Amino acid sequence: RYFHFCKLPARVMGIRLLRFTSVVIIVLLLVAGALTALLPNIKDDKMPNLRREPKPPSQSALDSFTLIMQTYNRTDLLLKLLNHYQAIPHLHKVIVVWNNIGEKTPEEMWNSLGPHPVPVVFKVQTVNRMRNRLQNFPELETKAVLMMDDDTLVSAHDLAFAFSVWQQFPEHIVGFVPRKHISTPSGVYSYGSFELQNPGFGNGDQYSMVLIGAAFFHSGYLEDFQRQPEAVYTLIDETQNCDDIAMNFLVAKHTGKPSGVFVKPVDIRNLEKDTNSGYSGMWHRAEHLLQRSYCVNKLVNIYDGMPLKYSNIMISQFGFPNYANHKNKM
Amino acid sequence: RYFHFCKLPARVMGIRLLRFTSVVIIVLLLVAGALTALLPNIKDDKMPNLRREPKPPSQSALDSFTLIMQTYNRTDLLLKLLNHYQAIPHLHKVIVVWNNIGEKTPEEMWNSLGPHPVPVVFKVQTVNRMRNRLQNFPELETKAVLMMDDDTLVSAHDLAFAFSVWQQFPEHIVGFVPRKHISTPSGVYSYGSFELQNPGFGNGDQYSMVLIGAAFFHSGYLEDFQRQPEAVYTLIDETQNCDDIAMNFLVAKHTGKPSGVFVKPVDIRNLEKDTNSGYSGMWHRAEHLLQRSYCVNKLVNIYDGMPLKYSNIMISQFGFPNYANHKNKM
Repeated sequence: RYFHFCKLPARVMGIRLLRFTSVVIIVLLLVAGALTALLPNIKDDKMPNLRREPKPPSQSALDSFTLIMQTYNRTDLLLKLLNHYQAIPHLHKVIVVWNNIGEKTPEEMWNSLGPHPVPVVFKVQTVNRMRNRLQNFPELETKAVLMMDDDTLVSAHDLAFAFSVWQQFPEHIVGFVPRKHISTPSGVYSYGSFELQNPGFGNGDQYSMVLIGAAFFHSGYLEDFQRQPEAVYTLIDETQNCDDIAMNFLVAKHTGKPSGVFVKPVDIRNLEKDTNSGYSGMWHRAEHLLQRSYCVNKLVNIYDGMPLKYSNIMISQFGFPNYANHKNKM
Repeated sequence: RYFHFCKLPARVMGIRLLRFTSVVIIVLLLVAGALTALLPNIKDDKMPNLRREPKPPSQSALDSFTLIMQTYNRTDLLLKLLNHYQAIPHLHKVIVVWNNIGEKTPEEMWNSLGPHPVPVVFKVQTVNRMRNRLQNFPELETKAVLMMDDDTLVSAHDLAFAFSVWQQFPEHIVGFVPRKHISTPSGVYSYGSFELQNPGFGNGDQYSMVLIGAAFFHSGYLEDFQRQPEAVYTLIDETQNCDDIAMNFLVAKHTGKPSGVFVKPVDIRNLEKDTNSGYSGMWHRAEHLLQRSYCVNKLVNIYDGMPLKYSNIMISQFGFPNYANHKNKM
């Protein structure tokens, strides 16, 4: 039954109008209440909010990256580095891979020292394995991963630039530490850095790997890593080494191109000597480099061929830090 | 009718065999004669061939490039540069765009000083136009063009490396001279180099053009250039300038990406002051830079928008000239 305004007496009209108006008001109040309930809760901070910066716009999965940092026996370095890395632009989240088996994570202390710019997740491991950091973590939401060793500090400027480079080369490992393999007449490969002879393709040196301990790469490669031949895992577990060489093999095989793109760091520091733990890192073991040559040859067997390719592209940031860093004598 | 050896008497067999053998010998001689006729003629050199290097394998159109060098009033520099550039690795041919209207080319002298590593073609022009070098020359057989100003010397090392970089970025202008445009609050653009303010996208500077007077680019862009709005040609002809800015607009519009990739040169020299002609090049004109800002704004009108994009990628050669040029303090 519709209202036929014209046909009702004024008094009846008045009461119906009143009823209608009340209903509308009640509905509006309910809606407002619902909206209020849906609003996010404002956290109670211990300090007054007076000087607090406005929240940055939320980072989309395409424009931000996840830092994955594995740690063993260097919690003091870890915490120092977390203070630095938590504030890097475009960082989405930090995943700490906790290889200190049986030891409590510093999560409580971490929370007591909040708030923090981004969420930090401590992933407790059951066995101390080098390849723990190469799991396909469910907490990983971004396309990009930044993997850092727990003793390496790279400046925010370098990271921001390298991230922008990765966005232009998303299928490559974009990082700060280049290495190479060389062929020898016997067919046996050797692993090393620039102290090794150049591979001999024209002028200058070449690199065929970019180490993942200071690099950006696509999170899809963590997924791919779960599907490798069992022998790869055995090799990494045996040596507690070479997970990064294996990743370079994986990427090179996948792309058919050089696995890495080297970005020359302006400010990269190794903080090893700063630790109180006395623990100085795997690469100090006597057999470390020999193991890595061994790994290259084993991986060639496993993958039935040498997929690594050479590159001599070295990328730096135009006009930074020196605004005339590209100037020439012309 | 086949030979049925078994069935013929010995004497008949003898004559037939003799006839058959003679035919075979004559055929072989004819074939040998034909092959000899098809062999390339060995040129008669004035000097004995004793110390002559074997001919290099012919360069395929994909693995070599064509040098296009336009010249006006600096034939002494041209000839000096040709002696250098004719020997660059992977060079297929040189096309000299002869803007000295009415003047004989040095072709006779060039030939008398042969042999030369590659063919050099002198393209006589009828009008002295800046954009003469942007014709789609029929002599052009390679995918890659190296365009050089007639007063610019770039080392063979730099060129070999930049060519390899172009092969990895074939849709870009890969070269040694970066420039940029900047936006101003009025909406009017300005053209310049690093002395201009940074465009303000994060740290450091950016470039949005790579000048074609010392760069590699795809020969397809010369074809594209023939199909531009008439107003572009008018602009270049009016100013006798800006052909390179127009090419950057063309490439940026085509790719939707930054038009150029900057390769930092190790050894690039301007030989202007070395010329006997007294002619010192267009860029010394008082209005040169103002014209280029003018061109940027005109081209934005013509193309109905600003297609140029910024980049801060600076590429250098890993381990060359210094084999440890990427070393860091780690």
